[in-house]
Amino acid sequence: MNVVIRAAKPTDVPSIFELIKELALYEKAPEQVSNTSKGLEEDLFEKNLCQAIVAEIDAEIVGFALHYTSYSTWKGACLYLEDFYVKEDKRTLGIGQLLFDEIIRIAKESKVKRMDWQVLAWNEPAIRFYQKQQAILDPEWLNGRLFFE
Amino acid sequence: MNVVIRAAKPTDVPSIFELIKELALYEKAPEQVSNTSKGLEEDLFEKNLCQAIVAEIDAEIVGFALHYTSYSTWKGACLYLEDFYVKEDKRTLGIGQLLFDEIIRIAKESKVKRMDWQVLAWNEPAIRFYQKQQAILDPEWLNGRLFFE
Repeated sequence: MNVVIRAAKPTDVPSIFELIKELALYEKAPEQVSNTSKGLEEDLFEKNLCQAIVAEIDAEIVGFALHYTSYSTWKGACLYLEDFYVKEDKRTLGIGQLLFDEIIRIAKESKVKRMDWQVLAWNEPAIRFYQKQQAILDPEWLNGRLFFE
Repeated sequence: MNVVIRAAKPTDVPSIFELIKELALYEKAPEQVSNTSKGLEEDLFEKNLCQAIVAEIDAEIVGFALHYTSYSTWKGACLYLEDFYVKEDKRTLGIGQLLFDEIIRIAKESKVKRMDWQVLAWNEPAIRFYQKQQAILDPEWLNGRLFFE
């Protein structure tokens, strides 16, 4: 099995967007996805609001990670890992670790002081994965949100 | 009392940075501030990683809000409110509401679909303020973090 980890290209976006919808379904919030594949393509490759990497096996996109530069008044520029997903039937092959390692490499290369993400408190397989990465998982903060849709 | 809400200028940064340290102290994490006033000034006015507004009374900066454009794969571009603070002796005067209203105006003007922030689960005065804004306060997510310092 030959897994390729590489930067996403515009032609990958429809596949990435399918994975985004799969992840939203797993996170029990499929109705919250109002973004579109076309919008995501613009945001990645025209507006440069975010960047993505993909995991590919035999020309099939089986996982991805999407990140952007966030900001901490305490630390300065940070890398925010917004989405990170491997298709269910491709798990346990180590693909998540390859993607996560590449994100850490990108974070270090861009000299950020911190990398952040969120995980649902009930998502035990993901929590176990992050614990293996020696990550801090902090339950102290609530997410505040206002919607303008 | 004449409160002016306006965009931050480079000369405001030392005062803003003092408020950032005050807020970190209130949040019981002063040792986590490794950023500097000079770094913040570059990030705001040269690298354009974030933007800030201030509340001023008689030429004194008494509060600020700092935000940046974040990204949601579900919603597209979002406004992330990273820090939002009013000096303790200037609270109950409605300055927080003026700052928050201006952030909402900026969010709507930039056509984001969602505005996000975090609040410590024990910070009851802040939680009451956000409840008054009809905000959603979601306890379901843990913050994952890795540090590269």
